[in-house]
Amino acid sequence: MSDFPKFVQINEEGPREGFQIEKGNIPTERKIALIDALSETGLKQIQTVSFVNPRRVPGMADAEAVVRGFRRKEGVRYTALWLNDKGFQRALASGRLDFRGSISTTASAQFLARNQQRTQEENLAAQRAMMALFKASGVNVDRGSVMAAFGCNYQGEVPVDAVLRQVDAIMDIGREHGCDIGEVSLADTMGWATPEAIKRVVGAVRERYPALRVGLHLHDTRGMGIANAYAGLQMGVDLFDATIAGLGGCPFAANQGAAGNVCTEDLAFMLAEMGIETGLDLDALIAAAELAEDIVGHPLPGSLKVAGSLDVLRRRVAARAENATGAA
Amino acid sequence: MSDFPKFVQINEEGPREGFQIEKGNIPTERKIALIDALSETGLKQIQTVSFVNPRRVPGMADAEAVVRGFRRKEGVRYTALWLNDKGFQRALASGRLDFRGSISTTASAQFLARNQQRTQEENLAAQRAMMALFKASGVNVDRGSVMAAFGCNYQGEVPVDAVLRQVDAIMDIGREHGCDIGEVSLADTMGWATPEAIKRVVGAVRERYPALRVGLHLHDTRGMGIANAYAGLQMGVDLFDATIAGLGGCPFAANQGAAGNVCTEDLAFMLAEMGIETGLDLDALIAAAELAEDIVGHPLPGSLKVAGSLDVLRRRVAARAENATGAA
Repeated sequence: MSDFPKFVQINEEGPREGFQIEKGNIPTERKIALIDALSETGLKQIQTVSFVNPRRVPGMADAEAVVRGFRRKEGVRYTALWLNDKGFQRALASGRLDFRGSISTTASAQFLARNQQRTQEENLAAQRAMMALFKASGVNVDRGSVMAAFGCNYQGEVPVDAVLRQVDAIMDIGREHGCDIGEVSLADTMGWATPEAIKRVVGAVRERYPALRVGLHLHDTRGMGIANAYAGLQMGVDLFDATIAGLGGCPFAANQGAAGNVCTEDLAFMLAEMGIETGLDLDALIAAAELAEDIVGHPLPGSLKVAGSLDVLRRRVAARAENATGAA
Repeated sequence: MSDFPKFVQINEEGPREGFQIEKGNIPTERKIALIDALSETGLKQIQTVSFVNPRRVPGMADAEAVVRGFRRKEGVRYTALWLNDKGFQRALASGRLDFRGSISTTASAQFLARNQQRTQEENLAAQRAMMALFKASGVNVDRGSVMAAFGCNYQGEVPVDAVLRQVDAIMDIGREHGCDIGEVSLADTMGWATPEAIKRVVGAVRERYPALRVGLHLHDTRGMGIANAYAGLQMGVDLFDATIAGLGGCPFAANQGAAGNVCTEDLAFMLAEMGIETGLDLDALIAAAELAEDIVGHPLPGSLKVAGSLDVLRRRVAARAENATGAA
């Protein structure tokens, strides 16, 4: 018998992951409409935009306007992504976001070199510099992340030790700056993870840091997303990033056209059927997924928005049974 | 530590599941080309066609011509589906198929009533009649199947006891006819299964019949297919039906447009990454999946044909490392 968590939190990353990868020009008000719809689903954290170079990521050129436009719902944290000081300053200037600093690392040196043109040492130095910036801006830092934790298109296998070294670095940097790091997210950035790998890596991190909350940022590149989430649940993982309708995609050339993040409503469905609390309204999630698909104008990967939830069928069965009783 | 099987068999049902549900007219020679491509992947069983009423299933009107056309590869079993005596006689008359009788049951009385217009008693009587027919035709019967084993669009939840009753019936009918039933396939006909349900139902069947080989026929209607297969593996299941590229679909009105069976090459990928033998060539499966997509002329659900396998990336990494060494 697995020791599943009683409550699982899903952090939504659809608006950011999805709209930055879309080719077409998506009107600002439609991006805002999706964030507003997501606010009504029970999600407790929604990543809204990324503050990145508009010449390199034209789909995020209207980030400020999106952040100005959505309705803040009480109890929901609205976050943004940035890659450098400039992006962070833009996020701060928006005045409408929730901030939580994070120490960002990568388990594959090759990926770090290609993706951010940095060595491991340079990245850790950059993270220390960000810590100073967070402190100066009054932003609390209580988490870290490890990208490419399960494998890498440029390096191949990523040894568990390489992941542990980055978790160690996160804990060290936190300690140096007097920050209590309570959470580390392991990212399957390039879709290399399979369920047994999830168990191996999560297990190793848990063994070294039993009190640390481990989150999973999963991609569905090779169709393993939900199975990987299930393996994570079996290891007690209670925190997942996901995107509504599976918005997003894989930006790496080797996987052109592959699926993006694990799908929020499909994951929420599995959790509901397992009797695990999420605080999420599946019908509202499906409606938001349909809206996301309408906005991007092409089919998105999520399954539940097509097949419907089982509760709809259960209600239909119950209604028929009631009608039959009434007629008798 | 789970006790995974060392070898898993995947039975391919793509040509039958896929081509019977497609709207357009698919040329006979293209159906044959897919079967021939599948024969080169290491698959040991391929369901080629169904012998059904051509007026009701026009996509299978050329079943005889398809069966005449493919090349039989040694060591591969080529099977067909039939729903009644007439279909069985057509299959026999083809003279080129492999036969293995099966006792076909359904755990949901409501589904049986709607799908086959039979009560449970009528179905068991029909199965007994088929046993006589199999015997008269020299066809060995060593397996059974239970449809709707995990839930039903018309009945709702399907209790584990209802599944066990059908397995009992299969074993009884086998015994009555002197047949040794060594294998029962549990089908998630309408996509209700989630990983914990797989464990519950497979566990109950295993407990009652420890020596029985349990197979799973999984659908990916709600995106749970691979996670359900993983749960099955954790229960020691070593036999799965699947379809190349996820060919097929869901014929039930309530799930219009939903995905079909779990995808052969995605499942084979997970197994390979777990170190479980399948005898399958992943590159050949991906090529067959691409052919299937080309034949139906629209995107099919499988992930691996888009993202590529990890072995391709590993080979690339190794080649780069070798070049670097050579250059040094």
